[in-house]
Amino acid sequence: MKKIRAGVLGATGTVGQQLVRLLQGHPWFELTALAASGRSEGKTYAGACRWLLPSDMPRSAASLPVETCEPGLGCDVVFSGLPSDVAGPVELAFASAGYAVSSNAAAHRMAADVPLLIPEVNAGHAALVERQRRDRSWGRGCIVTNPNCSATQLALALKPLHDAFGLRRVSVTTLQALSGAGYPGVPSLESLDNVIPFIGGEEEKLESEPCKLLGELVDGTVRPAPILLSAQCHRVGVRDGHLEAISVEFCRDGVTPQEAAEALEAFRGMASMLSLPSAPERPIRVRTEQDRPQPVLDRDEGNGMTVVVGRIRPCPVLGLKFELLGHNTVRGAAGAAILNAELLVAMGYLGN
Amino acid sequence: MKKIRAGVLGATGTVGQQLVRLLQGHPWFELTALAASGRSEGKTYAGACRWLLPSDMPRSAASLPVETCEPGLGCDVVFSGLPSDVAGPVELAFASAGYAVSSNAAAHRMAADVPLLIPEVNAGHAALVERQRRDRSWGRGCIVTNPNCSATQLALALKPLHDAFGLRRVSVTTLQALSGAGYPGVPSLESLDNVIPFIGGEEEKLESEPCKLLGELVDGTVRPAPILLSAQCHRVGVRDGHLEAISVEFCRDGVTPQEAAEALEAFRGMASMLSLPSAPERPIRVRTEQDRPQPVLDRDEGNGMTVVVGRIRPCPVLGLKFELLGHNTVRGAAGAAILNAELLVAMGYLGN
Amino acid sequence: MKKIRAGVLGATGTVGQQLVRLLQGHPWFELTALAASGRSEGKTYAGACRWLLPSDMPRSAASLPVETCEPGLGCDVVFSGLPSDVAGPVELAFASAGYAVSSNAAAHRMAADVPLLIPEVNAGHAALVERQRRDRSWGRGCIVTNPNCSATQLALALKPLHDAFGLRRVSVTTLQALSGAGYPGVPSLESLDNVIPFIGGEEEKLESEPCKLLGELVDGTVRPAPILLSAQCHRVGVRDGHLEAISVEFCRDGVTPQEAAEALEAFRGMASMLSLPSAPERPIRVRTEQDRPQPVLDRDEGNGMTVVVGRIRPCPVLGLKFELLGHNTVRGAAGAAILNAELLVAMGYLGN
Amino acid sequence: MKKIRAGVLGATGTVGQQLVRLLQGHPWFELTALAASGRSEGKTYAGACRWLLPSDMPRSAASLPVETCEPGLGCDVVFSGLPSDVAGPVELAFASAGYAVSSNAAAHRMAADVPLLIPEVNAGHAALVERQRRDRSWGRGCIVTNPNCSATQLALALKPLHDAFGLRRVSVTTLQALSGAGYPGVPSLESLDNVIPFIGGEEEKLESEPCKLLGELVDGTVRPAPILLSAQCHRVGVRDGHLEAISVEFCRDGVTPQEAAEALEAFRGMASMLSLPSAPERPIRVRTEQDRPQPVLDRDEGNGMTVVVGRIRPCPVLGLKFELLGHNTVRGAAGAAILNAELLVAMGYLGN
Repeated sequence: MKKIRAGVLGATGTVGQQLVRLLQGHPWFELTALAASGRSEGKTYAGACRWLLPSDMPRSAASLPVETCEPGLGCDVVFSGLPSDVAGPVELAFASAGYAVSSNAAAHRMAADVPLLIPEVNAGHAALVERQRRDRSWGRGCIVTNPNCSATQLALALKPLHDAFGLRRVSVTTLQALSGAGYPGVPSLESLDNVIPFIGGEEEKLESEPCKLLGELVDGTVRPAPILLSAQCHRVGVRDGHLEAISVEFCRDGVTPQEAAEALEAFRGMASMLSLPSAPERPIRVRTEQDRPQPVLDRDEGNGMTVVVGRIRPCPVLGLKFELLGHNTVRGAAGAAILNAELLVAMGYLGN
Repeated sequence: MKKIRAGVLGATGTVGQQLVRLLQGHPWFELTALAASGRSEGKTYAGACRWLLPSDMPRSAASLPVETCEPGLGCDVVFSGLPSDVAGPVELAFASAGYAVSSNAAAHRMAADVPLLIPEVNAGHAALVERQRRDRSWGRGCIVTNPNCSATQLALALKPLHDAFGLRRVSVTTLQALSGAGYPGVPSLESLDNVIPFIGGEEEKLESEPCKLLGELVDGTVRPAPILLSAQCHRVGVRDGHLEAISVEFCRDGVTPQEAAEALEAFRGMASMLSLPSAPERPIRVRTEQDRPQPVLDRDEGNGMTVVVGRIRPCPVLGLKFELLGHNTVRGAAGAAILNAELLVAMGYLGN
Repeated sequence: MKKIRAGVLGATGTVGQQLVRLLQGHPWFELTALAASGRSEGKTYAGACRWLLPSDMPRSAASLPVETCEPGLGCDVVFSGLPSDVAGPVELAFASAGYAVSSNAAAHRMAADVPLLIPEVNAGHAALVERQRRDRSWGRGCIVTNPNCSATQLALALKPLHDAFGLRRVSVTTLQALSGAGYPGVPSLESLDNVIPFIGGEEEKLESEPCKLLGELVDGTVRPAPILLSAQCHRVGVRDGHLEAISVEFCRDGVTPQEAAEALEAFRGMASMLSLPSAPERPIRVRTEQDRPQPVLDRDEGNGMTVVVGRIRPCPVLGLKFELLGHNTVRGAAGAAILNAELLVAMGYLGN
Repeated sequence: MKKIRAGVLGATGTVGQQLVRLLQGHPWFELTALAASGRSEGKTYAGACRWLLPSDMPRSAASLPVETCEPGLGCDVVFSGLPSDVAGPVELAFASAGYAVSSNAAAHRMAADVPLLIPEVNAGHAALVERQRRDRSWGRGCIVTNPNCSATQLALALKPLHDAFGLRRVSVTTLQALSGAGYPGVPSLESLDNVIPFIGGEEEKLESEPCKLLGELVDGTVRPAPILLSAQCHRVGVRDGHLEAISVEFCRDGVTPQEAAEALEAFRGMASMLSLPSAPERPIRVRTEQDRPQPVLDRDEGNGMTVVVGRIRPCPVLGLKFELLGHNTVRGAAGAAILNAELLVAMGYLGN
C-alpha cells in the first residue's frame, strides 16, 4: 500500500512535536509537510523548532521546510495541533480545499456536523463526515476532532460502564499534568511545591464533551447522552499523565466493583476490531493494587494509548468510585488525532 | 498568671517538633518536659532529635532531657504527637495519672466519652471531659483529641454551611501534602513527577470524623450529624498544605454561591469568643480570585490556623462546589492540639 | 526622624514586589511612588500587579497609582528592579534629575564611577558617589548598584578569606534557584525532574563582579582585586536560595578549615558598625553539620540577609573547599538594594 | 550459542531490578536465579519484590523463586546489586565456589587483584582475573567490579582527554539524581524544593576510583594514574541522570575546546571493537547547544549507556571546563555490571 501523505499544522508546538514523533515510521502515513505560524517561515523544521522531547528530532522531519498554515501543503491529510484560538478558520480552509483534517483543537468539536471521535467509543459518529461533505460541498475534504485530553480518558472509561449499567451522574476531580498547558506553559514558580486549582475552560469541556461522545447518532445528528457531569480541575507538578478521581451514579442499583471491573476489562471497542495501527491491544487496563494508577508508573501503558483504572470501590454518595489515568499528550492529543485519521482510512473516508 | 507546665509526647517526630516550635513563647503554656521512644533516652533534645524545621531548634527545648513516654513527667498537660499505633495505652496511662492529654493521634478519637474537638466547631463537646472523669475516675486527668488533618479543615468549612443550610451529602477529593506522612515519609522517587492515589486509613477518617464533629451533644453522648460523606485521597508533591475539592448537597434547595460565601465569611466560632491565643482572627477566609487557594500562597494564612476557601460555584451533580486549603501540620495537627488545650483552660478543665 | 520618600521602578516585577514587601514598615524609608512599564499606567498597584508572594500585598502599596518610569515621581530615592535591558537610560535620567538611585540592574555595575556595593564588603566604595556628582553634575542625584545575586553571596564569603589569607584563584559551581529567573521565568517542563546547566550572562558576572567588590578604591578609581575566578552555573528546581560549591587557592600556604571558619565567623563588616537597619546581626553563619547549608532549611537565616557556609574542608586541587548558600531575592536583590540605600543615608549621601 | 546462566544477588533492590530488566532478552545471558535477603526466602520474585520500574516486571522473572545469597544458585555468573556493607563476604563466597561475579558494590573495587572495569576505558585490566584465580585458587570463579556511578561517567569522559593531552588536575562538582540513593532513599521532604550538599562516601570514591581506572596494568598490578582529583557532591531533585560540572588542567598547555571535543567524539574504546552487546555505538556524545546536557533530555542517550558532554569552554582557573551527564542506574550501575560480564565472555574468562 502506498502511504498517505500527511502534514502537521502547528508543527513547532508541543502537540505538533508529538505528532511528528508519532508519525515516524507510521505504517499508513508519511510525513511530507509541516506548517506553523509566520515566524517560522522560510526555515527548516530543525531551524524553526525548539525540540522539547527526549529523543532527537526525527531526521526526515528536520530537513523539511516549515510552511504557512494555508492550503497548498503537499499532503492529503493534515493533523492540527494548532491553538484553539487560531484553529477555527484555518481548519475550515483546509477542509474546503479538499484536505482531511484530524484536529486536536477545540474550535469545531461541538459543531453539529463535526464528529468528536474516539474510535473505541463512537467510531460510528465518523459517518457525520458524509453529512459534512454534502452540506458544505467539501468534496474529499472533512474535519474530525478528538476531545480534550481529560475528556478523552474519561469517556473511554465511562463507555463500557454506560453500556453495561447506564450512567446518570458523574463527578470528576482531575489532577492534570504540566504538559497539558503546552510550552512555555506553567511557570515553574507556580508548579513547584504547589497545586493550581484552576485550568481555563477545562471544566466546561469535561462537563459537555463526554455527553456528545457517548451520544447516539440518529438521522445525521448526535443526541447527547443524558448524563449529568461535574468537574473540578487542578494542575499538579507532574510532567505527563492526567489522573482523575471519579464517582458515578448508575441508572441501575447495586452495581458492584467486581461487575464494573469486568465491564472495563472486557472493553475493546471498534478500533480493535478494525485493527487500527495506533490502537492499543486493550484501551483500558484495570489494576488491583491499592495505590495505582500512578502517573510515573502507568502513563506509558500501551505506548501511552491505554488508560489505566484502579481502586474501584463503593462510593457512599454516588455509588461507585475509582481512579483513572491517561497519557495526556499521547492518548489525549497527538495519538488521538492519528488514531482518528486511521479510522477515516479504515472507513473509506481517506485514502489514495 | 503562672504558666501551665506542658510536655510533649513523641517530641522527636514531625508533629512533636511542630508542637515544640509552637509552644515557644506561648502565653499560657511553658514547655517543661519532652518524651520520646526509648532510643532517645538519656539524651538531650538537641542530641536526640534530627530537627527538620527551617528555624533553629528553640534553645530552651534543646537542653531539656528526653524522657520515656510514661507518667512522671514534670508537667500538667501533655501534647501527644505519638504515632497512632502506640498512642492508645500511653495516653490512657497519662490521663489516669492525672494529666490532661491533648492528642493528635487517632487512637481515642471515636471513643464515646472522648471529645473530638475543633474549638470553633464544637467547643461544647469538651464537656465530655466531665463524663470521662466521672466514669473513669481520672481525677484531674482527661483526654481530648483533634481530628485527622484533612477532616479538620473539612469540618471547619462544613460547619457554617451545615448550620445555615443543612448538609445532606458531601463528596471530597483531597490533594494532600507530603508532610502529612511524617518523616521519612514518602520516598522522593514516589513523589517526584507523580501522584499517589492512596493514603492508608485516610478516606475512612474523612468519611466519619466530620459527622462526630458536627454532631450534637445530648445527655453526655454525641449524636453524629446525619451527613453522607465520600472521600478520595491523593498524595501530591507539595510540602505543606492540603487542598480539597469539595461538592455538597444541601437539605435546602437553591443555595447560591453568594449565600455560601457569606455564611463562610461570617463564621467565627466559640474559639474567637473565648479569645484563645492560638485561634486566628477568622477561621475561614474566602478568596474570590479564579485560581485560589494555592498551597504555596495560602497555607500560612492566619499563621497557618486559617483555612482558605475559593472557587465557590454551582455543581451540576450535588449543588455547590468549592476548593479548600488548610495547613496540615499547623491547623491540622500541632496547632490544633494546642488550641484544644487552650479551650480546656478557658472552660476550666485545666489550670493551676 | 522624618522618613525619606522612596519609589520603586519596575514595581510589578519579582524584584519590585520584594522591594515593596521589604519597604513595608521600614524605619527610614516610606514607600510613596511606584512605577512600571506603560502597560500598567493609570492603574493602581493592586490593579496592575499580579502579586506573587505568599503574604498579601501591603495595603498602603495596593492603592498607590502606578506611574511611568520617568523623573517626576514624588520621592527622593528610587529602587530599581528594572530589567537590565531597559535600566540603563532610565536610571541615568533619574540620577541626573536629582534622585538617588539604588539599582539591582546590571547596566551600570561595572562603570568606573558607579559603586558596586555590598556594605559589609566595601562600604568605602560609596565615596564614588562624590566623583559621580562632580563629574556628571548630578547635584543630589547618584547611582549605586548591588551585584548579581550569585556574586553577592560569593563576595561576602570571599571577603574575610581574602583579608585574612589572600585569594589567588577561585572556582565556583552554582546551583541556582528558579526565582532568580523572574516571572514567568523558567517553564515548569524545563525545571521538573531536571537541571539546566546554563544561565545567560551569569558566569561572566560571577567571574568579574567579585574582583571589583574586593578591589581597592584609590584616587577615585577601583583597582580590581587580582583574583582569577571560574564559574559554572546551573538552574535547579528550588524556589529560593542559591547554593554554591566553592574551591579556593590562597596566596598563603596551609590555611586550615579551622582558620577559615574562624575568619568567616568573625566577619562583621561596616554595615554592622553603622547599625544599618537591614543589616543582619552577622552577615555570615558557619554551620558544622555534614549536610548543610540546604536551601529549604537555611535560606531565611537572618531574614534572608545572612549567608550560610558549611562543609569547610581541604581541596586536593586548590587547597580549600566549602558550600555557600544565600537568599537570592533578598540578600541577592531587593534586600541588597535597600541595604545600599541605607548606607547612602548613613554616609550622608541621602537624606532629608 | 547456548546462553550463559545468570543470577542476580540483591534482586529486590533498585539495582537488582534494573539488572532483571536489562537481562530480559539478553543475547548472551539467561536469567535463571534470583537471590535476596532472608526476608524474601520462599517467595516468588513477584511476591517478594515491590517492583519500582514503569514497565511491568518481566514475566519470566516473576515466577522465579527468590533464594538466599549463598553459593548453590543454578547459574554461572552472578550480578551483584548487593548493598556494599553485605557484599564483601558474599561475593567472595561465590567466587571461591567457582562463580564469575560481576559486582556493582564498592567492597572489592580497590583490592589489588580485583579489576575495576569500564570496558571502553580499561578492558585490559580484566587480565587481573588470571592473577585472582591463581593466587586465590578460585578455579573458574572470579570477581570484577564496576565503579561508583559518578566515577564511571567521569572516567569515561576523562579517558580520551588523558590519552590525548595528559591530565594533571580535575575538579568536579556533581548534581546527582535521587535514584542513586536507592529505595526508599531520600525522603521527599528533603528533596522537594531543596538540594543536599552531601552524599556519604561519594567524594572519596570520586577522588580515587578514576585513578585506578585510568591507571596502567604492569606486571599484574595497576599503577594508578597520577591525577589530582577534587569532588563536591550534591543530591538534587532529579529522578535519573547525574550531571557533573568539570574543570581540568592538562599537562600540555593550550588545549582548545575544539581539540577536546574532537578527542571526546572520536573515542570508541575496546568495548566497541569487541562488539559487546550492551556497548553503545559511541560511549560519548558531544552536544553543541549552549544549554545541554540536561537530565530529562539526555539521560536515555544510547539506551542510557552513552554519556553526554556539552558546554566545552576555557576555564580561567584550570584550563578547560565542561558539563557531563550519564544515566546513573544504567551506565552507572546495572548496565555497567552487565557490560563487564560481556567483556569476561569476550576475553574468554566466562563461558559454557
